[in-house]
Amino acid sequence: MKPLIHDDCLLQSDAARELYHEHAAKQPIIDYHCHLNPAYIANDYLFDNLGQLWLEGDHYKWRAMRTNGIEEKYCTGKEASDWEKFEKWAETVPYTMRNPLYHWTHLELKRAFGVDKLLNPETAKEIYDVCTEKLRTPEYSARGLMKKFKVQVVCTTDDPADTLEHHISLQEEGFEIKVLPTWRPDKAMAVENPKEYRAYVEKLADVSGVTIRKFSDLIEALRKRHDFFASVGCKLSDHGIEEFYAEPYTETEITQIFDKVYGGMELTKEEIWKFKSAMLHEGAMIDWEKGWTQQFHYGAIRNNNTRLFKQLGPDTGFDSIGDFTVAKAMSRFFDQLDKENKLAKTIVYNLNPKDNDMVATMIGNFQDGSVAGKMQFGAAWWFLDQKTGMEAQMNSLSNLGLLSRFVGMLTDSRSFVSYPRHEYFRRILCNLIGNDVENGLLPASEMDFLGKMVEDISYHNAKNFFNF
Amino acid sequence: MKPLIHDDCLLQSDAARELYHEHAAKQPIIDYHCHLNPAYIANDYLFDNLGQLWLEGDHYKWRAMRTNGIEEKYCTGKEASDWEKFEKWAETVPYTMRNPLYHWTHLELKRAFGVDKLLNPETAKEIYDVCTEKLRTPEYSARGLMKKFKVQVVCTTDDPADTLEHHISLQEEGFEIKVLPTWRPDKAMAVENPKEYRAYVEKLADVSGVTIRKFSDLIEALRKRHDFFASVGCKLSDHGIEEFYAEPYTETEITQIFDKVYGGMELTKEEIWKFKSAMLHEGAMIDWEKGWTQQFHYGAIRNNNTRLFKQLGPDTGFDSIGDFTVAKAMSRFFDQLDKENKLAKTIVYNLNPKDNDMVATMIGNFQDGSVAGKMQFGAAWWFLDQKTGMEAQMNSLSNLGLLSRFVGMLTDSRSFVSYPRHEYFRRILCNLIGNDVENGLLPASEMDFLGKMVEDISYHNAKNFFNF
Amino acid sequence: MKPLIHDDCLLQSDAARELYHEHAAKQPIIDYHCHLNPAYIANDYLFDNLGQLWLEGDHYKWRAMRTNGIEEKYCTGKEASDWEKFEKWAETVPYTMRNPLYHWTHLELKRAFGVDKLLNPETAKEIYDVCTEKLRTPEYSARGLMKKFKVQVVCTTDDPADTLEHHISLQEEGFEIKVLPTWRPDKAMAVENPKEYRAYVEKLADVSGVTIRKFSDLIEALRKRHDFFASVGCKLSDHGIEEFYAEPYTETEITQIFDKVYGGMELTKEEIWKFKSAMLHEGAMIDWEKGWTQQFHYGAIRNNNTRLFKQLGPDTGFDSIGDFTVAKAMSRFFDQLDKENKLAKTIVYNLNPKDNDMVATMIGNFQDGSVAGKMQFGAAWWFLDQKTGMEAQMNSLSNLGLLSRFVGMLTDSRSFVSYPRHEYFRRILCNLIGNDVENGLLPASEMDFLGKMVEDISYHNAKNFFNF
Repeated sequence: MKPLIHDDCLLQSDAARELYHEHAAKQPIIDYHCHLNPAYIANDYLFDNLGQLWLEGDHYKWRAMRTNGIEEKYCTGKEASDWEKFEKWAETVPYTMRNPLYHWTHLELKRAFGVDKLLNPETAKEIYDVCTEKLRTPEYSARGLMKKFKVQVVCTTDDPADTLEHHISLQEEGFEIKVLPTWRPDKAMAVENPKEYRAYVEKLADVSGVTIRKFSDLIEALRKRHDFFASVGCKLSDHGIEEFYAEPYTETEITQIFDKVYGGMELTKEEIWKFKSAMLHEGAMIDWEKGWTQQFHYGAIRNNNTRLFKQLGPDTGFDSIGDFTVAKAMSRFFDQLDKENKLAKTIVYNLNPKDNDMVATMIGNFQDGSVAGKMQFGAAWWFLDQKTGMEAQMNSLSNLGLLSRFVGMLTDSRSFVSYPRHEYFRRILCNLIGNDVENGLLPASEMDFLGKMVEDISYHNAKNFFNF
Repeated sequence: MKPLIHDDCLLQSDAARELYHEHAAKQPIIDYHCHLNPAYIANDYLFDNLGQLWLEGDHYKWRAMRTNGIEEKYCTGKEASDWEKFEKWAETVPYTMRNPLYHWTHLELKRAFGVDKLLNPETAKEIYDVCTEKLRTPEYSARGLMKKFKVQVVCTTDDPADTLEHHISLQEEGFEIKVLPTWRPDKAMAVENPKEYRAYVEKLADVSGVTIRKFSDLIEALRKRHDFFASVGCKLSDHGIEEFYAEPYTETEITQIFDKVYGGMELTKEEIWKFKSAMLHEGAMIDWEKGWTQQFHYGAIRNNNTRLFKQLGPDTGFDSIGDFTVAKAMSRFFDQLDKENKLAKTIVYNLNPKDNDMVATMIGNFQDGSVAGKMQFGAAWWFLDQKTGMEAQMNSLSNLGLLSRFVGMLTDSRSFVSYPRHEYFRRILCNLIGNDVENGLLPASEMDFLGKMVEDISYHNAKNFFNF
Repeated sequence: MKPLIHDDCLLQSDAARELYHEHAAKQPIIDYHCHLNPAYIANDYLFDNLGQLWLEGDHYKWRAMRTNGIEEKYCTGKEASDWEKFEKWAETVPYTMRNPLYHWTHLELKRAFGVDKLLNPETAKEIYDVCTEKLRTPEYSARGLMKKFKVQVVCTTDDPADTLEHHISLQEEGFEIKVLPTWRPDKAMAVENPKEYRAYVEKLADVSGVTIRKFSDLIEALRKRHDFFASVGCKLSDHGIEEFYAEPYTETEITQIFDKVYGGMELTKEEIWKFKSAMLHEGAMIDWEKGWTQQFHYGAIRNNNTRLFKQLGPDTGFDSIGDFTVAKAMSRFFDQLDKENKLAKTIVYNLNPKDNDMVATMIGNFQDGSVAGKMQFGAAWWFLDQKTGMEAQMNSLSNLGLLSRFVGMLTDSRSFVSYPRHEYFRRILCNLIGNDVENGLLPASEMDFLGKMVEDISYHNAKNFFNF
C-alpha cells in the first residue's frame, strides 16, 4: 500500500507526472505574500517542539479542533502544555480526512521531517518526539527551514508604522533569502473606532516625523512611510477589505470626515465608505507611482464570535466567507484609476468562490497590453486554499483569462513549515494541465510549451512581474 | 446489460463498494426531518394504488410533468383518475433522464416493489398493476413500508397548535418505530397577513389555554406548547425562512408591533423584520433551554405563480431558489445567542448552492468545542437533493469543516416510499470517499476508520447528536 | 500523436461517440440567435484574408491579446495591417491554452479550412496564406461558409428602427437558408441618456410613420415596427438587460416619465426602473400576442473601461460578469404576465454561473403544460460559452428541469466561421450523456431514446419550439 505522501501523489496521468517532475518541482520558491514574523528570521528562531511549531497561532487547526469537540484550553489556552495541545490535535487529525489539514499535516511531516507515519493518537508521541528532536537542530531553525524548501524571496505583511528593523538587519547582514516587507495600511483605513484610530494616527505621526493635523498630513505621513518601505525593498501593497469602496467624494468631505473621526466622533456608514474610498484611491496612486503591485483581499467577514473575540482577540478562527455584491464598485474603483492612467499592476483575491468568474472577467476590463497579465486573479485564498478551491480558481482563470500569465502560489501563512503548499499547488496545477493532455483537450505535441508554462506559473511569472 | 438499479450502482471503485456494502448499507434509518402525515402511521394507512402513492401531493413530479407539456388536470386535477395521472407520469419519465426523478422512480420501484423494469408508456400498465396489488397487502401499509426500510426514528413537522394526537397514540400503543414531532412555528412569525395572523394567534390561545393580549402572552403560550411538544418526545425545531432576521429591536417595539398586527393593521417591512428577529431569537432561546437542535431552512422563494397559487394553494410546485445576501445577518443572529451562552445545537440548510461555502465556514465561527459538530451544515435540501447537490454540499463541508461529524441524510419527504433516498445518499457518500482512496487522496491503510466514519454519518452521528 | 481536433475529440466513451456520430453530427444547424451582419449575406461578402475574418470585431481575441501584453494597435488599431494583427494573434495563441479560444481557433482552422497545424509564430505565415487563398474563392464567401456548415436558419439581431432591407432582399431572392430578423428593442429602453434617447425616438417615429408625442405613441410606433418584423418572418425578441425590471408603476407615471426624458431631463434611478419595467412588460405582451419567443440576456456590466470606451466605443472587450440579485424581480416580472395569461414562450440567459440553479428552478414556476419546455434556461452565454460553462448549464438544467426539452445551442456570434461551436456544444452534450451511460447513471438499454434526445436538443426542439 502506498503511503499518503509519495512522489506521484495528486498526479493522475503521465503528462501530469512529467510536467511536475521535469518542470515544476525544480523551481525555487517565491512566496510573495505571507505573514511570517520577520523577527523569527532575523533571530534565526529555534522552535521548542512540534506542538509549538504547529499549534501556536494556527487558527485553521483550532477551528477543526473546536468542531471536533475539543475544549478551548487545548486550542488557545495558556494552561495546557504544548504536548497536551498536540495530543488533542493528533486525536483530531483522523477526523479531518477530506479536509486540507489532513494533507497539509502529512505533507509537512514528510517534507520537513521525513516522517511517513499518519498522525493519530497511537503515533502521536513518537512523531512528537522525533520532530521535536529535529526542531532543536540548526537545520530546523527559521532560516534552516526556509533554505530546506529552496525559498528565494518572501514578502511579509507589515503595517506602515512598522520599523522594519528586522528586514533591514537581514539585508545588512546579507542573508541569502530576500525578506521584503509588504505595505498593508489596513489600520490607516479603520475609522470604525475613533479612539483606536486616533491612537494609530498618532503613532504614524510619530514614526514618520510628520505632524498630523488634517487629512493631507495623514497622506503626507503615509507617503513618507511608503518611501521608507520602498527603500527597504518593498514591491507590493496589500489591502484586507470587506468590499471595494468606490463612492464619489470631494476633498472637502474627506477633510471633514478626518477631522470628525480624529476628534473622536463616530462616523456614519456613508462617511466611512467615503473615507475608505478616498484612502484606497490615494494608496493606489502611490503604488502606481512606485511601480509596485497592489493586492486586494476582499470578502471576509471577521470576528463573528463576539464572546470569543473578547477573550482571544482577532485571527483566532472566528472569521468566515462573506457574500457581498461587489462587481460595480470594483469596476468603478479600477476605472477611476485607469482614467487617470494610474492603475498599478494588481492582484484581486476573492474569498467567496461564487465570485470566481466575476473576478476573472473583471480583470479583463483593465488589461491594457502594457504588461502581460497586468491584472491578476489571485490564487485561491484562505478557506479556498485547497484542491477544490485551487482547481476552481485555475479553471475560471483558464476559461476567462490566460492561465499562462498567472503569477501563481503564495502561502499567506504564519508558519515556517507551510512551504509544501507550493508543492501542493504545483502538483494540482500539473495535474489539471496533464489531465487535459491525457484527455486530448490540450495537444500532446506541445509538452515543451506546457512545461515552460508550468515553470512560468511556478516561478518566472512572479519573478518578472514583481521585479524581484 | 446491467439494470439501472443494481447492487453496485453509483459505486465506482472497490473502496466505495466496500464502504457501502460493509458499512453504510447495514445501518438503520434515522429520518430526523420529514413531512409524513402522522395520521397515516397511526391509522396504518393502505394506499389505493401506485398512482395515488406517487402523484398525490408530489410537487417534484408535477413540475416535471408541466415542463413536459402535460396539462394541469393530470397533475393536480380532480377530474383525472389515479391511473390517468400515472399514465401521464409514465409518459414523462423517459424525458426526466438526468433528473433525480429518473433515479428516484426506479430506485423506489426496485427497493419497495422489486420491479426492475424501466417505467415508460409501454411498461406503465404492468408496473401499475403489479405495484397496486402489492400496495393492498399489509406489508405495504404505511407502517409496513417503514419497517421494510429499517426505519428507527422519524421526526415529522408540526405546528405549535397541533394536538399531536397521532404521535401520542403511537407512543401509547408502543409502536416500535419512534415517531416524534418537530416544532415548526412558521405561522407564529407570519405577520405579513394581519387577518390570518390574528386567527392563528387565537387558535394558539385556545390550544394553550393562555389568554393572548400582548406579545409576552404570545411567548407564554408558545412556551406552553413547546413544553407539550417536549413531553411528546420532540427534540428538534425547524424554521422555514427566506432570510436570517437579526435586526436590532427593543421589547417596547415588539410589543407595539404585535399590538398593531393583532389589531388588524398592515406592518411596514421594517416592522416585519424586527418582529421576525424577535421571534427567531425567542424561539432559539427556548430550544437551547431544552437542549434541542434548531434547524433553519432558508432561501426559498415561494408561491411565485399567483394564478396557480390561487387555484391550487401552497406546496404545489411553484417555489424556487432565491438569491439572498445573508452572511452578516446569519452571523449576527448566532452571535447574539452565543453572547448570551444560549446557542443551541444548530443545522443550517441553504437552498442556493452559491452559499455552500459561506455556510460551511459560518458554522465554524460558532463551534465551541462543547459538542462535536455542534453547528451543522445541513444535507443538500429540496432542489439540491440530488447527486450533484449532495456532492457539492459534502465537498464544501469536507473542505471547510469536518465531514466526519456530519449528521447526514433526511428525506424531507411526504412519501412513505422515499426512504431509498437514504440509500442514494449513502452510495454517493461512499463513492466520494472511496474515490478519494482510489485516487490516493485518502490513505488506503485507513479503511477501518473510513468505514466507521461512513457508519457515523449514516447513523451514529444523528443518533448521538439528537439524543434519540 | 493525435491532432488536437480529430473525429472523436471531446468524446470520452463509446456511448458518447455513438451519440455524437450516429445522431448529433447528422443534424443541420439552426442558429436562432446571432449577430451576423445581414448585409454580408445579402452581398455574399468575400473576406480579404484570415486576419480580417478573425480579428475584425472579435473582442474575445482582443481581450486575450491585451492580457498577453499586446499593444492596442494590434487589436483595434487602424495603423496595423491585417497581417500584423494576425501575427500578434498567432503569438498569443499558445498562451491561450486552456482558454476556449485555443479550441475555437483550431476547430475553425480544421472545419473551415482543413488545416491541422497548430497556430503559433512558426506556422502563422503558412496558415495565413493557405486560408487567405481559400477565402478568396466562392466556397468561402459569407453564403458559402453558411452552406458548408449545413445552416438552415439564422436569426440576426436587429433594432426596431432597422429597415430589414437585407432580410427582405434575401427572401425575395429565395436564398435557401432562412435569414430572419430578431426584435431587439434595447435602445427603446435606454433612457439613461435623454439626448440620445430623443434622437432614437425621433428615428422610430420617422421609420414607423407615427408621430410620437407621448408614451402611448411610442408604443404604437413600436407595435407597427413589431408587425413589420413579423411580416419579415421574425419569431423572436431579445433583451439585453442588467437586471429584471419589475417595479410597480401606473400609466400616469410612465406617461410623465416619458415626457420628462423626451423633454431632455435626466431621470432618477427610480424613474428609470419604472420606465424599464413598463417597457419590458409592454414588449412581452406584444411578443405573446404574436406567439413569438422572448429572450432575456441579463447580468452583464458593460463598458467598464471609460478611457478605452471613449476611444473605441462599445463591444470592444470591456464588458464583464455582474453579480446582481434578481430572483424576486424575475419572479414578479413573469408572474405579472402569467396572471394576465400573456406569458410568451421564454428563454432566460444568465451571465453569472452562480445564478444557474436559481434560473433553472425559476423557469419551473411558469411551466404551465401548454408547450413542452415553454420556459427555457438558455445555453451558456458569452463568457460561459465554453466546456465548463456549458456543462454547468446543462447539469443544472438536468438536475432541476428537463434537459430533454432544451432548445440547445446558438452562436451569439458576429463571425461566419463560428458554426463549429454547434459541433463543440454537441460533442460536450453527447459526452455528458454518454459518460452517464458509461457510469451506469443512465441505462445502456435506452440508447435509442438518448439518441433521439440528442437529435432533439441539436435540432428538432428548436425547430418545433420556434415554429421555423
